Amino acid sequence: MTKKRIAVDMDEVIADSIARFHEWYGLDYQLTLTLDELQGKHFHEAVAPEHQAALREYPNRPGFFKDLPVIADSQRVLREINQRYELFIATAAMEFPSSFLDKYEWLRQHFPFIPWRNVVFCGDKSILNADYLIDDNAFNFDHFRGEGILFDAPHNAGETRYRRVRSWQEVGALFL
Amino acid sequence: MTKKRIAVDMDEVIADSIARFHEWYGLDYQLTLTLDELQGKHFHEAVAPEHQAALREYPNRPGFFKDLPVIADSQRVLREINQRYELFIATAAMEFPSSFLDKYEWLRQHFPFIPWRNVVFCGDKSILNADYLIDDNAFNFDHFRGEGILFDAPHNAGETRYRRVRSWQEVGALFL
Repeated sequence: MTKKRIAVDMDEVIADSIARFHEWYGLDYQLTLTLDELQGKHFHEAVAPEHQAALREYPNRPGFFKDLPVIADSQRVLREINQRYELFIATAAMEFPSSFLDKYEWLRQHFPFIPWRNVVFCGDKSILNADYLIDDNAFNFDHFRGEGILFDAPHNAGETRYRRVRSWQEVGALFL
Repeated sequence: MTKKRIAVDMDEVIADSIARFHEWYGLDYQLTLTLDELQGKHFHEAVAPEHQAALREYPNRPGFFKDLPVIADSQRVLREINQRYELFIATAAMEFPSSFLDKYEWLRQHFPFIPWRNVVFCGDKSILNADYLIDDNAFNFDHFRGEGILFDAPHNAGETRYRRVRSWQEVGALFL
């Protein structure tokens, strides 16, 4: 029997890019955001209007994707998923060309069991031929040919069209 | 009606990477290869056994993908294809991580009408959800869900399983 294929997004799904936003926002403005303030919004949308343009550029700043914390349990669960499914990492790196190498090296370091053949940098995830896509951005499911699984994040709190998973433990319960 | 989607490989299809092999092989060894010597072989397989390991590493050397010549007529034909189809560029950049930025910038320069959303760096092209894949490597068609169109190259001379196109003029005749 052919293995089912699962594609997994990076930012806010396995890599904690919001931690970097908190860190740099604190360094640049000596300010913090609460989880309540982030509900339904991307980080750069939740800050004061005069800071939004600068924060939208954070992912283009060198180092943004370097040494991001790993989302809890993602390594353990993906290692098991990798044995029963065809696992691909699919990340929208094209929007931030300076991120290519940092993202690639981060994957090598934290997910060494995922071969380079199973890594995809793309802009439009409708190009993925997979059965499932685990992603925090529901717009990536619009033209995706498989089933979208929404990984819970403050910014997607209001989204109700897709199956939601709140943690990698829940992903494990769903697929393993 | 939904547009059909065409994915197009880069090396030896729109970017003349063989020109770089000829150039560096000449600089390093003061040797040349004829078209006859390249029949049925990749460049690194056609050189003397003691040079093969070094030539296999050329694509990992900084600068390999910089300023590659554009394959004849590919810009004109792809500009027209882009108006009638959903066009994606799909290249196996993952094998050569140092190539990401050079490949991306080469596309920006020579194919500015292809938006970043339509560029894919991948290892295994079976991940592509497209109707056609124009590629010089037949192994990329093995698990591709659409139809593979083999772009003629010396190394694939013996391949008979797929529809072959010998130039971008022929691609134009097929799709336009």
